[in-house]
Amino acid sequence: MSVRVGVIGVGMIGQDHIRRITQVLTGGSVTAVNDVDAARAGQVAAGLPGAVTYPTAQELIADGNVDAVLVASWGPAHEEQVVAAIAAGKPVFCEKPLAPSSAACQRIMDAEMAAGRRLVQVGFMRRYDAGYRAMKAALEDGGLGAPLLMHCAHRNPSVPDYFTTDMIISDSAVHEIDIVRWLFGEEIVAASVLTPRRSGHAPEGLQDPLILVLEMSGGALVDDELFVSARYGYDVRGEVVCETGTVALADVSEVTVRTQNRHSGRVPVDWRDRFIRAYDTELQEWLDAVAAGTSTGPTSWDGFAAAVVTDAALEALRTGQRTAVAMPERPDFYVK
Amino acid sequence: MSVRVGVIGVGMIGQDHIRRITQVLTGGSVTAVNDVDAARAGQVAAGLPGAVTYPTAQELIADGNVDAVLVASWGPAHEEQVVAAIAAGKPVFCEKPLAPSSAACQRIMDAEMAAGRRLVQVGFMRRYDAGYRAMKAALEDGGLGAPLLMHCAHRNPSVPDYFTTDMIISDSAVHEIDIVRWLFGEEIVAASVLTPRRSGHAPEGLQDPLILVLEMSGGALVDDELFVSARYGYDVRGEVVCETGTVALADVSEVTVRTQNRHSGRVPVDWRDRFIRAYDTELQEWLDAVAAGTSTGPTSWDGFAAAVVTDAALEALRTGQRTAVAMPERPDFYVK
Amino acid sequence: MSVRVGVIGVGMIGQDHIRRITQVLTGGSVTAVNDVDAARAGQVAAGLPGAVTYPTAQELIADGNVDAVLVASWGPAHEEQVVAAIAAGKPVFCEKPLAPSSAACQRIMDAEMAAGRRLVQVGFMRRYDAGYRAMKAALEDGGLGAPLLMHCAHRNPSVPDYFTTDMIISDSAVHEIDIVRWLFGEEIVAASVLTPRRSGHAPEGLQDPLILVLEMSGGALVDDELFVSARYGYDVRGEVVCETGTVALADVSEVTVRTQNRHSGRVPVDWRDRFIRAYDTELQEWLDAVAAGTSTGPTSWDGFAAAVVTDAALEALRTGQRTAVAMPERPDFYVK
Amino acid sequence: MSVRVGVIGVGMIGQDHIRRITQVLTGGSVTAVNDVDAARAGQVAAGLPGAVTYPTAQELIADGNVDAVLVASWGPAHEEQVVAAIAAGKPVFCEKPLAPSSAACQRIMDAEMAAGRRLVQVGFMRRYDAGYRAMKAALEDGGLGAPLLMHCAHRNPSVPDYFTTDMIISDSAVHEIDIVRWLFGEEIVAASVLTPRRSGHAPEGLQDPLILVLEMSGGALVDDELFVSARYGYDVRGEVVCETGTVALADVSEVTVRTQNRHSGRVPVDWRDRFIRAYDTELQEWLDAVAAGTSTGPTSWDGFAAAVVTDAALEALRTGQRTAVAMPERPDFYVK
Repeated sequence: MSVRVGVIGVGMIGQDHIRRITQVLTGGSVTAVNDVDAARAGQVAAGLPGAVTYPTAQELIADGNVDAVLVASWGPAHEEQVVAAIAAGKPVFCEKPLAPSSAACQRIMDAEMAAGRRLVQVGFMRRYDAGYRAMKAALEDGGLGAPLLMHCAHRNPSVPDYFTTDMIISDSAVHEIDIVRWLFGEEIVAASVLTPRRSGHAPEGLQDPLILVLEMSGGALVDDELFVSARYGYDVRGEVVCETGTVALADVSEVTVRTQNRHSGRVPVDWRDRFIRAYDTELQEWLDAVAAGTSTGPTSWDGFAAAVVTDAALEALRTGQRTAVAMPERPDFYVK
Repeated sequence: MSVRVGVIGVGMIGQDHIRRITQVLTGGSVTAVNDVDAARAGQVAAGLPGAVTYPTAQELIADGNVDAVLVASWGPAHEEQVVAAIAAGKPVFCEKPLAPSSAACQRIMDAEMAAGRRLVQVGFMRRYDAGYRAMKAALEDGGLGAPLLMHCAHRNPSVPDYFTTDMIISDSAVHEIDIVRWLFGEEIVAASVLTPRRSGHAPEGLQDPLILVLEMSGGALVDDELFVSARYGYDVRGEVVCETGTVALADVSEVTVRTQNRHSGRVPVDWRDRFIRAYDTELQEWLDAVAAGTSTGPTSWDGFAAAVVTDAALEALRTGQRTAVAMPERPDFYVK
Repeated sequence: MSVRVGVIGVGMIGQDHIRRITQVLTGGSVTAVNDVDAARAGQVAAGLPGAVTYPTAQELIADGNVDAVLVASWGPAHEEQVVAAIAAGKPVFCEKPLAPSSAACQRIMDAEMAAGRRLVQVGFMRRYDAGYRAMKAALEDGGLGAPLLMHCAHRNPSVPDYFTTDMIISDSAVHEIDIVRWLFGEEIVAASVLTPRRSGHAPEGLQDPLILVLEMSGGALVDDELFVSARYGYDVRGEVVCETGTVALADVSEVTVRTQNRHSGRVPVDWRDRFIRAYDTELQEWLDAVAAGTSTGPTSWDGFAAAVVTDAALEALRTGQRTAVAMPERPDFYVK
Repeated sequence: MSVRVGVIGVGMIGQDHIRRITQVLTGGSVTAVNDVDAARAGQVAAGLPGAVTYPTAQELIADGNVDAVLVASWGPAHEEQVVAAIAAGKPVFCEKPLAPSSAACQRIMDAEMAAGRRLVQVGFMRRYDAGYRAMKAALEDGGLGAPLLMHCAHRNPSVPDYFTTDMIISDSAVHEIDIVRWLFGEEIVAASVLTPRRSGHAPEGLQDPLILVLEMSGGALVDDELFVSARYGYDVRGEVVCETGTVALADVSEVTVRTQNRHSGRVPVDWRDRFIRAYDTELQEWLDAVAAGTSTGPTSWDGFAAAVVTDAALEALRTGQRTAVAMPERPDFYVK
């Protein structure tokens, strides 16, 4: 049986998820769309046989032909939409960030706990990447001993004009914030931000690159180079250093070319190129879980925790000081 | 609109394709199954909501709820089944070999040409592998100049007891036979087989490894190491040597592990592990082409040509002599 | 004409340099030895045809058959010996550290400046490593833009019992302290030390691993993982991140082995294995410079600067605070 | 004690060996030179303090200040010079080929056997390459089982105008001919040559590339791609396929550069770049053996065997047929 999905927000990301559900994945269909831009919603729906358009998210959520909701609207709208889906008892996939503030994330968790079952999956797609999954498997295998350190780099060739230094934390680093929580199975307890020499290719006003240092509850340290004007490609790297060995994301290039005195492989050109399969896997597993009546991916708690750490990292950026993360205890509801 | 597929032959390969259509790919469903083992057909159908079982392939092909046919029966049955699908005007995906003899392949081509449109796709899945596709793109890019040589290796960790030396050609080498025709865009004009020292781990009676040398119509040479008792893993390698550079399949491992004085990556354990994505892409593109009313993959001519070259290679193995390939001219029907 | 070298200190390092001069390099011979352990000096001299033994370093330095002096005694003895060589007008190669305190290093510089010509080379052998040299060439080539960051790792499989946490800075990190000054062509202006989770394999009392963060005068940041109980091998890594690309030390393994589902290369077992050629090149270039009457390698200033930064890093380790480096201005005498 | 070397032939190779002995290696000096071009001999000697020039090779060999002879003259002159050195009881290092014909090599062996001790080392420098040595160590370790196959490639960016197709065998392939005899510890029993499509960049009249197939006495097969107009760099590759794994020469690049969407390493530009260390090691070990009164490297028998196999390969090239190698039994004198 196919999961009938209603999509809220049909900008670039929303349309990409629609393409995924209708042309790549199995077990799902898109039956309703909504967007603040009604014309855009209409255009997108026109390409989807049988899909209807709703003027409001509320109406879409209420539609009996909508089994599950995918939220790809802009961040400030997430809370209301996710809470409405919860109220309707419908599973909801929400793109990151879950909500723009930890307080809003808290309210989502409160609603979900009141509803009594997990309905929310947050779009941290790196957990579905084959590289990070192999890394986690290597850590869990135990042959390398306890993890002590992780070195990360997150390099984008460039960013749009509206990108701010804060967004290097909230939009870029948030991926590592989630992935290290997942890899280590621990919370982050403090954050610091170092500001290296600025690249001459950084857009005016942008402090780029940055180094974010995260401290895990078990004592492990993570350093994360964030460089959004890196020019040469989209390059996400990571090495976990354990007591008796290390495991690192490999350079994955399908072919090796030898020419002009170099042997070389390809670096991805952008995040789509690098993570397209992870997005596919993420949404397929969500559809599968919805169909099975279960919930498997990153939870509201993960969305909340990322928001809390992001807040601390932003304060660390502002103050130049190591900043403790004010993480409350995880509710039992979200303990596996 | 979903393509309703009837599957003939539901052994291991057939069941894997059913899993693929129903659980991985989009745009297809399985509506009918047939197998020489009726009980097995029944069991498989039982797990497919809405699918029916037919006692004969002919009845399955005739079913109005079957838009397209997937043939995964044993080789000797292919000809009759594929020809019947052609007669019914239904697109048919046929696992390799298209038929066990070049004469049988010729009869399939004759039927298809009489029908007046291409209906047959043969299951040479390597053409859908990201590595070979990147290799072909590098060759077509032109930056490396004309291809002169290709070195291949095709290593299996082990083979079942029933595997014969002839099967090293007809089951293993046939993949390189197809892929080099596709990569070079040329036919193979001669084959030779060299017999190196036999591995002590080769099953009794098996001459393993072999080296197959293929001569392309444009003069390029291909050497193909075939080693089906290679033990250490499933390893498919290839390097095309061009006038100003080379392009080779890379070792693809998601992570690099450092431990015990080695840095290392993973070698695939078997063909599923190595080519699962290629199979997915192959069948997805077939479903897409069927839905679009077109035909895109390896054709009956490719199946025929592989059979003709395989015959020559088997004779070369038997005689120890270089053997010319008796390839007829390609019918216009199969020219692009 | 061969340079006649007098060696002060014939423990492990001193003997290794003697082997190098007599059995590997060209243009040098060992004509005199001295050691606090007179018996050991005698044994070593016995294996060196024509070499004499002196009870004191002073007498060795005064010997007319000694053209140049190699100091491989323990650190506290360096100052007196190096200053004596300077006083005698003889070139002197001094193993790191130049002296145990920056004040002592200052006195050596004062003596050398008073003598009016550069006579001292300090044993920072990494500058002679083919990897670091290729890295520096890539930086100087300019194609990568300005360097912004460097990530380093310095991993030893294990350390002797007497090793202390301070020695992780003064003995291990001192290599990166020198190499980044050389690579960036800048001084270090501040140091911080982070203390990750301690490895269960670290000897009792040792805080291992550490992360040392260095700030360059031009704003670039360096993070240096120091891990002396890393178990899996001796692994020195480095990546300089520039405005339009990066350059990293490569894994160098002479062969790739495929077995047991892994493809793998070798990690060096210890510092000799990794840097033996750098030591050879270092001492050959010193002999060549002495023969040519010039001076080319790391200077007293480099030894002094490393000591000043080490002091700051040790204070940062003690206090947990970012510590500014109290570096005086470089005397003109030591500017190129 | 230093070995006093007399050098016969001071063209490019001879001068390079002189540079090596005088500026790189230890334990040797050049005391005499001879060349058919007396002026050139004089110029070279002028740069060597204490070296004398002789008008004939015979006079150089007879000089009491010459302990050992290095023959770097042109091939046709080797026999007479090497035999003269043997007659004088002096160790002689002879560049490859030992002599231009197997008959001439035989006469050298006869002279050496008559003299009663091994005096000749032939300049097959690949045996001293760290890559091939690691490969041999991996094979002898036994963990990979018996070797069954070897794939080689020998690519030069370009060749001088005078280069002929025969020279691809006699000058290029001769390196693999020697190295596989050494790696496998077996003789070569047959040779075949395949002629792929000719590169458009091959000089007029040159059949380039070639594939040479060698059969070892134990049944293993070697395929060797020879491509002397490969343009992109100097690239020597090799993979030995064994019963339970393989060992291959690795790409050795000191650094990895990431820029313009590629991660890449360096391919050597020419044979000097690739094998300079092997030449250094080769000649150092020769000097050490001479000083020790022993003989350790490739022998006259190895030079002879390479000539016999080269003859067979040239006939195979001429006839297009598999050609058996007419190898006599190895004299006891040359068995270990």
